[in-house]
Amino acid sequence: MHDSDSIGIVAPLRIYFDTPLSLESGAVLDNYELVYETYGELNATRSNAVLICHALSGNHHVAGVYADNPKNVGWWNNMIGPGKPIDTHKFFVIGVNHIGGCHGSTGPANINKKTGKHYGADFPMVTTVDWAETYVRLADKLGIDQFAAVVGGSLGGMSAMQLALYSPEKVRHAVIIAAAAKLTAQNIAFNDVARQAIITDPDFHGGDYYSHGTLPRRGLRLARMLGHITYLSNDSMAEKFGRELRTGSLSFNFDVEFQIESYLRYQGDKFAEQFDANTYLLMTKALDYFDPARDYDDDLSAAFRCAKANFLVLSFSSDWRFSPERSRAIVKALLDNELNVSYAEILSRHGHDSFLMKDEHYHQLVRAYMNKIDI
Amino acid sequence: MHDSDSIGIVAPLRIYFDTPLSLESGAVLDNYELVYETYGELNATRSNAVLICHALSGNHHVAGVYADNPKNVGWWNNMIGPGKPIDTHKFFVIGVNHIGGCHGSTGPANINKKTGKHYGADFPMVTTVDWAETYVRLADKLGIDQFAAVVGGSLGGMSAMQLALYSPEKVRHAVIIAAAAKLTAQNIAFNDVARQAIITDPDFHGGDYYSHGTLPRRGLRLARMLGHITYLSNDSMAEKFGRELRTGSLSFNFDVEFQIESYLRYQGDKFAEQFDANTYLLMTKALDYFDPARDYDDDLSAAFRCAKANFLVLSFSSDWRFSPERSRAIVKALLDNELNVSYAEILSRHGHDSFLMKDEHYHQLVRAYMNKIDI
Repeated sequence: MHDSDSIGIVAPLRIYFDTPLSLESGAVLDNYELVYETYGELNATRSNAVLICHALSGNHHVAGVYADNPKNVGWWNNMIGPGKPIDTHKFFVIGVNHIGGCHGSTGPANINKKTGKHYGADFPMVTTVDWAETYVRLADKLGIDQFAAVVGGSLGGMSAMQLALYSPEKVRHAVIIAAAAKLTAQNIAFNDVARQAIITDPDFHGGDYYSHGTLPRRGLRLARMLGHITYLSNDSMAEKFGRELRTGSLSFNFDVEFQIESYLRYQGDKFAEQFDANTYLLMTKALDYFDPARDYDDDLSAAFRCAKANFLVLSFSSDWRFSPERSRAIVKALLDNELNVSYAEILSRHGHDSFLMKDEHYHQLVRAYMNKIDI
Repeated sequence: MHDSDSIGIVAPLRIYFDTPLSLESGAVLDNYELVYETYGELNATRSNAVLICHALSGNHHVAGVYADNPKNVGWWNNMIGPGKPIDTHKFFVIGVNHIGGCHGSTGPANINKKTGKHYGADFPMVTTVDWAETYVRLADKLGIDQFAAVVGGSLGGMSAMQLALYSPEKVRHAVIIAAAAKLTAQNIAFNDVARQAIITDPDFHGGDYYSHGTLPRRGLRLARMLGHITYLSNDSMAEKFGRELRTGSLSFNFDVEFQIESYLRYQGDKFAEQFDANTYLLMTKALDYFDPARDYDDDLSAAFRCAKANFLVLSFSSDWRFSPERSRAIVKALLDNELNVSYAEILSRHGHDSFLMKDEHYHQLVRAYMNKIDI
């Protein structure tokens, strides 16, 4: 890794919880494990902890590299590290894999101790509310009374928002990036097509593909291809791929003809080998279910009445998955409650994926906000 | 049918062509059949013929009903009929199913006389250029030297545009609705996900599902679900479905939970029983290949240099599949060539599908344009 600002070599930690977790769905997880990573040092007053919440396909490996695989760079390494916008000289940063995930925290690919088999489709539905409770418990175990900040983009931003509502005293600052207060019908529609692709794949076997020695590759591949379209902007796709032909001339067959097809199929193929399909289903449902205003007659301002945190809300001009309009609705609800909120709409051509990219203006905004946080 | 303006009972006609058709791909169809319908009367000077080009899943049954199935109303019955915007008192209207289609014109579901088997995947790729040649030949057979107008929306608009370029003297007016001069990378990406869904369906059998007694229902269903998302606007989906729950409360499972899921799955299921998957593949490729500027160094104005028709170009404000910007690019190229062009961007909340809907302003514009055509 040629990145002098990197946190360097990191290693995942595991923590076991034997207190049953009552989930929003009504199901109960008798016990569970979380996998997480930390960067920087927790200060003496334990006031400098920053929790990073990951998005749909993210995980706890947020920054740095693994000793045995220096190419496995954390997904937000450009944002987090010594001297970076979320500065590990100042903050003790925690990345945690959501339960239901497939990177180490208890999820559908794990063995259910009760049955001796993979959870598979029996793994209960998990929501951002359930994750909020796991964050609180993790903080308790680490002796952290309050997070200096909870930060996330996309589903991670929703998870951060949810924690600020679920446990207002646990969150001093919430940084909510490229998110929305709930999914639109169109957002849900894309998720459902992705789910139907997975569930109707004959290799899915009702979610029990583990015991059949198969993977629902076709379905997961399609889900990821479709997802990618919504992560990129029309403009960025046009810039990156245009109508460029793979071979320079039309082939008049169904093989890859245009570069965009090559890119999407490659992304889909790679993902289908690496990610667990049941986790993909759960994460998309967690997105669909996220709706803090649901219990308040669809009144988001009422939902935020309990919040105590200060907020930084960021959106990207070319994000059509969760457009700036959606972020402004969050800001309005925060202002209705006279909460401290900073908001910026960042000019970007990269669509929803902008939140993962190194954009100077974006990083300056996060840096400035994080710098002024008292610890 | 309670529609006094309807053309009433109609019946499809068939016409056989034994002159080989050399396709843009290099393949040759030795012979082929077209299925078509006509409404109104061809006048003595044969100057009042209007050709309707259909979109991806459309066909020749454009207006009226069938005697044996009065519920089978033509797909553009609100636009075409006595006293309607395209008035069958004035015009002799022709609807024709594209070759490669699955509603009667020669296509992949037909028997290849050479092999005695279904064409299936052996059916050659067809393009708007190939269709243009079939329109010319059909006009010749019907004794029509020049169409008064060629009209189409979406892929149909592209087909109309292509005919005006392929055979400029055959087209007096071209009405191009909700179209674009070529697909963007994003448009191609959506098409490729749909195609991959079909092609990777185990029941596709390399396109030869006919002889396996199967249908690639899963793939075609997903393709249609995805298509529908792009046909509707975000706003119209939100208005129609919002986040309404099917049963009133969250069920925390993967069955239909939100109304939008119910709608999409229903549309997908219905389509998968009715439409031929190989035709779907061909139609999406015809969309991808459409690019009149390709042979002119990407200079659309140069591509239109040969055009002689007068043009009406219409777009819809909420169409994000082929946005108004894409129509304005067409208009610019027409104006660069000092062609007569009328353009309107119609305020509509219904997205790409607006072109099929009965909107007063939209229909008035088409009516006014069609009324002033000399015949």
